[in-house]
Amino acid sequence: MTGSVPLPGPGLALGPGPEFDRIRKIIGLLGPQGNGLGDDCGLFPEGDEFVAVSTDVSVEGVHFRREWISLEETGWRAAASALSDLAAEGAEAIGLLCAVTVPANASEPELLQLMAGVSGAAGAAGSKVLGGDLASGPGWSVAVTVVGRTRAPVTRGGAQPGDRLWVTGALGGARAALEAWLLGREPLPGARARFAHPEPRLEAGRWLARHGARAMIDLSDGLAGDVGHLAAASQVAVEIDLDSVPVTPEAEEEAKRLGIRVQQFAAEGGEDYELLVALPDRFAEADGFVSECGIPLTPIGKAAEGSGVIFLLSRRPIELKGFNHFG
Amino acid sequence: MTGSVPLPGPGLALGPGPEFDRIRKIIGLLGPQGNGLGDDCGLFPEGDEFVAVSTDVSVEGVHFRREWISLEETGWRAAASALSDLAAEGAEAIGLLCAVTVPANASEPELLQLMAGVSGAAGAAGSKVLGGDLASGPGWSVAVTVVGRTRAPVTRGGAQPGDRLWVTGALGGARAALEAWLLGREPLPGARARFAHPEPRLEAGRWLARHGARAMIDLSDGLAGDVGHLAAASQVAVEIDLDSVPVTPEAEEEAKRLGIRVQQFAAEGGEDYELLVALPDRFAEADGFVSECGIPLTPIGKAAEGSGVIFLLSRRPIELKGFNHFG
Repeated sequence: MTGSVPLPGPGLALGPGPEFDRIRKIIGLLGPQGNGLGDDCGLFPEGDEFVAVSTDVSVEGVHFRREWISLEETGWRAAASALSDLAAEGAEAIGLLCAVTVPANASEPELLQLMAGVSGAAGAAGSKVLGGDLASGPGWSVAVTVVGRTRAPVTRGGAQPGDRLWVTGALGGARAALEAWLLGREPLPGARARFAHPEPRLEAGRWLARHGARAMIDLSDGLAGDVGHLAAASQVAVEIDLDSVPVTPEAEEEAKRLGIRVQQFAAEGGEDYELLVALPDRFAEADGFVSECGIPLTPIGKAAEGSGVIFLLSRRPIELKGFNHFG
Repeated sequence: MTGSVPLPGPGLALGPGPEFDRIRKIIGLLGPQGNGLGDDCGLFPEGDEFVAVSTDVSVEGVHFRREWISLEETGWRAAASALSDLAAEGAEAIGLLCAVTVPANASEPELLQLMAGVSGAAGAAGSKVLGGDLASGPGWSVAVTVVGRTRAPVTRGGAQPGDRLWVTGALGGARAALEAWLLGREPLPGARARFAHPEPRLEAGRWLARHGARAMIDLSDGLAGDVGHLAAASQVAVEIDLDSVPVTPEAEEEAKRLGIRVQQFAAEGGEDYELLVALPDRFAEADGFVSECGIPLTPIGKAAEGSGVIFLLSRRPIELKGFNHFG
């Protein structure tokens, strides 16, 4: 450790929600021991760069059901959702570790299927499996810890008044799958793929970090919740124009069936693993992003002096519900 | 990443056992993606040193029972067992990440007790909590990932014929607690402390690394199993003189009740988290170790050309059972 680069600010503020109340209490309990917590990744300096780390646990019956997705998809999804935190930091993936809990009646081929998915996601991110642990337990559970590196981490806390907020890709696909399954239907293939096989936006995250990103977060809890984290951490107010939010075709169909406006449907859905990024108002390279990263980059809002988040739908404020993994 | 330091050898061989058969199959499946797996820690070069990472999961009903130890002890134990892998690499702890699964009926104070234990172990190791995740699930489960650094990692794979094998501390304490609980008795206080509040041997591990340690492993699966991993990874034969193995007083008492020789009792018991280390035959600084690290360091065996492990009790070979966490 050379300490040649300063760590970005102390513990970052989180947006509202019962899960985050618990996390806030834990951060309070940890005190200086937990200094820096609250971002997509923990960071520590090493040589002339930072190592970024993050951990994510996926539990059968809470984050997925065996009848919805295969074990290989379960492994991929667990690893991809953790890798997505590296993307949000603008970091490159080095590798991941995987602690798997397996029900006593599971077979060895099942375990290997799960690990094939984890390994596939690690490989697609250009990274390795650095370690693991294996235990029996009451159900399937996969805790993935990712390790990456970056010279200039992008936290949630750097957005400035006047910045524009942009989102990569299109939202609502994972929720479209979830709603279909919950109603006992098989989701549309595009929606199913978004849920079962999310693509962590590592290349996009690094591109944005190189092109002036001031704050970034991955959309795991859904736009409705995650904008609040970025606003709180950056100590800015944010206004999101939901009419600008790009949505997947499957979200359109599913929202129609549920009688909800698709922008609300997409903003309240979690686990799309797209990136929300604050860029200076002068940023004018979206075309370059699209041609280099192969996915859309769409302006959806702006930061201002103050605090809190306002969502506008057809120019009128609307209350949105966050996506709550907990409970 | 400068790549200025070469990574220690490729994937390391593991000793026998059904848990390790599964891990071997997973390593086989991963191929080059899992290159380097099989040691206490995964390693990657960063600047002019290595970052060492390891993950460990503790599951209620498998690794601990709520009626045996408090949630704070559960958290400490989960973190300490993971930190012990850094000790075995000769690494210094930077921090840890903690993915916790909490049963739906758990209270917030219970969660905070668990985290106080995790935080206590992190602090005692001079390290921080770098990240976490929280999910509901069927029972308590804690996956701890530790991150450390070292300029010269000590793997399991460097023992050479002629080396002597040494062990830190005294063995059998954690098993003494376990046997008491399994018979419905409260363990002796010293045994209970060894199980509930293990001390990762970080200082000892770094001391040994600085003083010529050629191979090291922490005794989580018990001497009976872990010697096999060191021998297999180092491609040497090992002979252990069980009569030399230091045991705790509580192990003596518990072994007597069970009618087992205490050395066998201690060698077959897991989770003592002491270090087994191979040092060149010329090593003569055990007194310095004891005065600087405050725990015993005892020669218990030697490495030779060949393969496999022989345990001698009263100079006769004896078959030992490994400690199997799995199933």
